[in-house]
Amino acid sequence: MESIKWTVATGLALVLSTGYTLSAFAQAKPETLVEQRQSAMTLQGKYLYSILPMATGKIPYDANIVARNVGYLAVLTQMPWDGFDPRTQGVKPTRALPEIYKDPATFKAKQDALHAEIAKLQSAVKSGNEANIKAAINDTNKACNSCHDTFRAKQQG
Amino acid sequence: MESIKWTVATGLALVLSTGYTLSAFAQAKPETLVEQRQSAMTLQGKYLYSILPMATGKIPYDANIVARNVGYLAVLTQMPWDGFDPRTQGVKPTRALPEIYKDPATFKAKQDALHAEIAKLQSAVKSGNEANIKAAINDTNKACNSCHDTFRAKQQG
Repeated sequence: MESIKWTVATGLALVLSTGYTLSAFAQAKPETLVEQRQSAMTLQGKYLYSILPMATGKIPYDANIVARNVGYLAVLTQMPWDGFDPRTQGVKPTRALPEIYKDPATFKAKQDALHAEIAKLQSAVKSGNEANIKAAINDTNKACNSCHDTFRAKQQG
Repeated sequence: MESIKWTVATGLALVLSTGYTLSAFAQAKPETLVEQRQSAMTLQGKYLYSILPMATGKIPYDANIVARNVGYLAVLTQMPWDGFDPRTQGVKPTRALPEIYKDPATFKAKQDALHAEIAKLQSAVKSGNEANIKAAINDTNKACNSCHDTFRAKQQG
């Protein structure tokens, strides 16, 4: 208790003595969080949907583009999750369903499943086996869809 | 000329024989390019502006967050540029100025300058020298602003 008091007092003193505003410590606005998470989703789409047709044989396979995009996706798939803050509910129409906040354990499990598929995809790219890479691209897409099926509205609100 | 004809004919044959639609080969729509490049800018903002106050001393320095964000920024700063396609001019109001397409060499030089600052920032993070890291974060921000000053409208259109 003593240490908590000390921390709060010190924090306040720090804020007051250096002219810090409280907003410097405050969380991002809900609107900003929505824009940021949607941006991460948009870029995941950019780099997944340009290699998915390679995995399904719809366009010619390009190993360089696949390797680049998989590297990008490994980073981008870290980014959306902190944007799903309960404070973002209702701030503007999005396809994010309330189930995200009612069942955070399942939402987290879907994220973990995506990360596992991305790790598999990165291993496949490292090995250079085209069949394995294509299978892992398809499995990554399935992990995206599995979460969307549960936690994203079918039509744009 | 012969080889060009062959390529076009082969491409068409490929398209027709396998049921591919031409859209599979087509470029992204201008609206999509704008959305994707704006998404990359939004995420660059997310991960730069959360560590910039650490560099300027406005909030406490957190080495783990800095290292993570710099890794993200190294990837994100690769992403916006292919979205600045001349076809995107006028498709919707954005702050991108026509100078981008009138003076592509300078636009490219500004990108290269940013990439050089990011490389310097990554080196600083690897070395772990906090003063160097803070200086490099500030220089990265200056590289962003230098491009914005020339190629981005002052107010949202």
